[in-house]
Amino acid sequence: MSNPQIVFSRRSRQTPYEQRALEQGAKAFTIYNHMALSAVYRTPEEDYAHLVEHVQIWDVAAERQVEVVGPDALALVELITPRDISQCAIGQCVYAPLVDERGGMVNDPLILRLAENRFWISIADSDVLLWVMGIAYGRQMDVKVFEPDVSPLAIQGPKSDDLMADVIGPEVRNVRFFRFIETQIAGIPVILARSGWSGQGGFEIYLQDSGLGLALWDAIWAKGEAYNIRAGCPNLIERLETGLLSYGSEMRLNNNPFECGLGRFFTLGKKAEYMSREALDRIAKEGIKQKMINLAIDGDPLVAPRSTFDVLDHADKVVGIVTSLAYSRKFATNLSFATVAIDSAAKGTKLQVVTSQGTRAATVRGSGWKD
Amino acid sequence: MSNPQIVFSRRSRQTPYEQRALEQGAKAFTIYNHMALSAVYRTPEEDYAHLVEHVQIWDVAAERQVEVVGPDALALVELITPRDISQCAIGQCVYAPLVDERGGMVNDPLILRLAENRFWISIADSDVLLWVMGIAYGRQMDVKVFEPDVSPLAIQGPKSDDLMADVIGPEVRNVRFFRFIETQIAGIPVILARSGWSGQGGFEIYLQDSGLGLALWDAIWAKGEAYNIRAGCPNLIERLETGLLSYGSEMRLNNNPFECGLGRFFTLGKKAEYMSREALDRIAKEGIKQKMINLAIDGDPLVAPRSTFDVLDHADKVVGIVTSLAYSRKFATNLSFATVAIDSAAKGTKLQVVTSQGTRAATVRGSGWKD
Repeated sequence: MSNPQIVFSRRSRQTPYEQRALEQGAKAFTIYNHMALSAVYRTPEEDYAHLVEHVQIWDVAAERQVEVVGPDALALVELITPRDISQCAIGQCVYAPLVDERGGMVNDPLILRLAENRFWISIADSDVLLWVMGIAYGRQMDVKVFEPDVSPLAIQGPKSDDLMADVIGPEVRNVRFFRFIETQIAGIPVILARSGWSGQGGFEIYLQDSGLGLALWDAIWAKGEAYNIRAGCPNLIERLETGLLSYGSEMRLNNNPFECGLGRFFTLGKKAEYMSREALDRIAKEGIKQKMINLAIDGDPLVAPRSTFDVLDHADKVVGIVTSLAYSRKFATNLSFATVAIDSAAKGTKLQVVTSQGTRAATVRGSGWKD
Repeated sequence: MSNPQIVFSRRSRQTPYEQRALEQGAKAFTIYNHMALSAVYRTPEEDYAHLVEHVQIWDVAAERQVEVVGPDALALVELITPRDISQCAIGQCVYAPLVDERGGMVNDPLILRLAENRFWISIADSDVLLWVMGIAYGRQMDVKVFEPDVSPLAIQGPKSDDLMADVIGPEVRNVRFFRFIETQIAGIPVILARSGWSGQGGFEIYLQDSGLGLALWDAIWAKGEAYNIRAGCPNLIERLETGLLSYGSEMRLNNNPFECGLGRFFTLGKKAEYMSREALDRIAKEGIKQKMINLAIDGDPLVAPRSTFDVLDHADKVVGIVTSLAYSRKFATNLSFATVAIDSAAKGTKLQVVTSQGTRAATVRGSGWKD
């Protein structure tokens, strides 16, 4: 049986690159921030094999930006994350959990600092725009909050540096991780950051005029043929191997950043005011009750769940859920992210997963899938 | 060529009824409020023909609820809409544009008043939850704002009253339009409202325990076979004929309620504080520059645009865009919603639409598609 089709409308917004994605064979989509996001070209396995060896161009315009600009911009961005944004230089991006006053995860964006008081919040799939607008209104802050006409295009894979040096010049090799520069591609002004939703290296290119999307794609594509470029998209196998979370799957509003393993991205008690201060202090003191883990599941390749699979402990008690799953040839096992009760979360714990193909033995792994 | 497929994950949330929708042949989906929403069963034309003659059961769990409860609940709901919510009785629903301090449309929900200070905002496709949470935090209001476990199931079509009288009892016939009652179906407590996203009559049933979705569906289905029940979904042809707008297509944050024709749902100057007061007073005084219209497009049935088609005036100048389109056999023409410059918006104005099948003559129609 073929999977259900997707129905597009103006509501599921078109990207500036979508025509090229379809021409290159994008055959499955998801919706992300009310916008089309390609999800499969050939098969997830073929897309993966090419990504880890060559270079791909990804239509990730669905990573929308929330621009915060004005005299109170820094104060507002500080308010919504426990991460110390005063330490983020102009030209730098930081991964920053957005956390509400109850300690709940609202999103896990990159924040780009464009100027002292001008930021782009490059968001995962929730309407951060509306949340930040609501806070700014409620606090009467002197700031503008809006979605600019900015559409990221990603270049990912081990040949990314060679390709982009060819497209822009050798200076792109000197752009450090999570730093960005303003430059041009075929005369089109762009911001180029060393970042992206894979562990294979590469760049995200922030186009600032959606009317120029096809020209930007074509300029890179023309140089890319020498590097065996293909169109691609964020790949489930690769993101599990690399350990990249997806807001809405691995975490939601009722999860706190500690249980998602995001505590390492901030230190509690920064100087600036932040709305999650009391809630996070309390959670840190009380300790977490559940935790996101890397869970390797034994046996043949599994079909990923529509939503979740239950996780059982050795006594067959439900202790959690699997939130994402894919088979990895590299690790020769099924990889999954799961959220489980804290006393089942230690590395090496033997668990079980109730899959659509029967109950399977599973083992908690460490970061990088280490035993 | 078949349409692209949809990729589901935990992020594109599963509904309590989805298994039945798939079993009944839902073959295309969209994503709405981060949740699957079925979009086609047989064909849009066949689905339509059945809907206007019989009765259908619709999985509309994607119409999520934002619950606002607590001492400041009424004040908060008043703040976010120009509609006078103090006039909404307990047991009543009102259609209320949510409008920000700049006069922009955030959503166009039904608001259900469950108690003096307890509301469900039954939302279209934007994260109203985050916006209302942000405002409540910023204003330090004494209120809880959250998404409850509530999943609407719609019964729509001319045989809806007969079916639901059979399921619940004859008292459902006395439920007035946009009023709701608390009742039970097969022992499952539900709220039943006379409402729904079609003009064919019917009910929306608010299930409050997602674990009971299949039992609720099955209980109604068993009685429905006598009425030729089918599974269905909001139908594009029907909503164009009936004049129902879709947030994200017909209106967005940069549209004000007057240009969307929503001014008739409120009177400026209600007693309670509302955040859009100044912006809407200003827009009302200055007048609108563009307007949403009913636009009939001549010729053979058109394929709907991926996103929009341009609208031209008699001098070939671009004056607006088509935002939704379907061919109606009932009106024997292509129906579309369009947003055009105010001097091209009068009923009877002759315009042109640049479609994927050539440029077509078009005429502005009145409400109900009257000439």
